[in-house]
Amino acid sequence: MKARVVVTPKAAVLDPQGAAVKEAMQHLGMPEVKNVRIGKYLEIDVNGDGAEMEQRLHKLCRDLLSNPVIEDYQLLKE
Amino acid sequence: MKARVVVTPKAAVLDPQGAAVKEAMQHLGMPEVKNVRIGKYLEIDVNGDGAEMEQRLHKLCRDLLSNPVIEDYQLLKE
Repeated sequence: MKARVVVTPKAAVLDPQGAAVKEAMQHLGMPEVKNVRIGKYLEIDVNGDGAEMEQRLHKLCRDLLSNPVIEDYQLLKE
Repeated sequence: MKARVVVTPKAAVLDPQGAAVKEAMQHLGMPEVKNVRIGKYLEIDVNGDGAEMEQRLHKLCRDLLSNPVIEDYQLLKE
């Protein structure tokens, strides 16, 4: 199974990295940029499949790959 | 327009961060993990739309958001 995990800062959390990229894009010829948010992207190859595997992946997403206090994650299977 | 950009290390490039996460996942109850690769994820809100805007976004992806020597990017429009 191939899983993709996207970890993004929660909407209420400041994202200074995103703000810096927004400023840079605006100065490099794209003043139309309104907002940028930056997160992490993980591609995970796993042997096996099934609901139990997915449940364990969700647990690892919460415990290891994201900080649930300030981040949300999305788990996409392929 | 909302654009999502995913920046990942090229296949031939070592990804020590991904290797560390793989090890951690294997030790935290998921020995089935074969490979992990880690990249960046950007959500960009832009005023406007169209092919010319997309072309400029691609240019910024190459010049600012990714390092074409070691990274690939994917631009997804919404």
